[in-house]
Amino acid sequence: MAYFRLADLHRRQRYKLIAGAIVPRPIALVTTLNEDGSCNAAPFSAFNYVSEDPPLVVLGLQVHDDDGPRSGEMKDTTRNILRTSQFVVNLLDEALLEPMVGCAADFPPGMSETAAVGIELAASRDVAPPRLARSPFALECTTKQILNFSHHRAVLIGEVISIHARDDAIDRETLRVDLERYRPIGRLFGSLYCKTRDIVSLPTPSYDAWSAHHEETRDKTETDL
Amino acid sequence: MAYFRLADLHRRQRYKLIAGAIVPRPIALVTTLNEDGSCNAAPFSAFNYVSEDPPLVVLGLQVHDDDGPRSGEMKDTTRNILRTSQFVVNLLDEALLEPMVGCAADFPPGMSETAAVGIELAASRDVAPPRLARSPFALECTTKQILNFSHHRAVLIGEVISIHARDDAIDRETLRVDLERYRPIGRLFGSLYCKTRDIVSLPTPSYDAWSAHHEETRDKTETDL
Repeated sequence: MAYFRLADLHRRQRYKLIAGAIVPRPIALVTTLNEDGSCNAAPFSAFNYVSEDPPLVVLGLQVHDDDGPRSGEMKDTTRNILRTSQFVVNLLDEALLEPMVGCAADFPPGMSETAAVGIELAASRDVAPPRLARSPFALECTTKQILNFSHHRAVLIGEVISIHARDDAIDRETLRVDLERYRPIGRLFGSLYCKTRDIVSLPTPSYDAWSAHHEETRDKTETDL
Repeated sequence: MAYFRLADLHRRQRYKLIAGAIVPRPIALVTTLNEDGSCNAAPFSAFNYVSEDPPLVVLGLQVHDDDGPRSGEMKDTTRNILRTSQFVVNLLDEALLEPMVGCAADFPPGMSETAAVGIELAASRDVAPPRLARSPFALECTTKQILNFSHHRAVLIGEVISIHARDDAIDRETLRVDLERYRPIGRLFGSLYCKTRDIVSLPTPSYDAWSAHHEETRDKTETDL
């Protein structure tokens, strides 16, 4: 085993190690409103749900650009969420992978990624930022809490107010998601993403079933000896 | 599109909708110490990294069991983390999927899942709870902050102190993860998990490259007309 003390590593090495180990990550294309009313869209994979009661999602926000010509400037998504406290988490499927990656380009501040990439928007109902019209699931969110741990990073806890689900992605009655229609993609690292079609079903055993099976296996082993 | 206001849904419906939409999720098999010194292990998929500076992971903790005979009791992992402020996040690959699902069975409180399922442990270096010997990546963590949003759920922010990486999973010099050796699995919902071998590479374009390509495409389209 290799052993790394994170305090001894450069920030970029830590990122490489952590983002390479914690995979696959779900992807949120987060839409917010720029000050001029245009739509900003940025992908996040430091993202997940953390509770359903209350319904909460978490986003690792980059507060400042680390490198490049805009070094030290606040990122558009962060600035917009701090100003408006509203955002939409758009989930993606295979068809939206390429447009999403396009949104990650270093567009000039205030330039609408969705307009540039040609993603169709639709009005939200509970928050001002629009959602992606073709997103399989769009979660309308408000800021619940922002935690500042450093100059570089903030942790945003968002409350999910409502969800739009594409008609083919879910059964309205049972709320069962249809993975034949909703083809999610996972974030790996570098330029890599994964499809999720290779599915394994492994029901969680009950303790009773587990111990019965365990006894049986043990008896069998003892007989075999 | 179907529209759901989360306030109108039962907690279990909210869970089904959110956990069905936000996929694939990374899986942490979290090891903690029980009061008698034995090892507790529980899988979490309400989990991700949220920052590398400082290096932070987030876990959605279930404070109390919701149903069943232990309803109202505090979950072992939650109780152990509140008491000791130490835990290890063990990442998994395909070989560890079945033992991990075994750990999710409803073992009696204080019974060691790792002993029951037969998972080999190894000593950690910076925290008291052991790590899984065969885990591709084991992150030794301490509690940074716990946020209580309801009786049912708490959000744990953990700081990563150190990382053990399996020799075959990473290049020690470049920190490049080898996905031929580390075969992560993603959490879907219900009894479903996904393999991650179907990989797509899509580099993020630079704005300059994007606008050059965009101009070219536009010129071409105009010529075609």
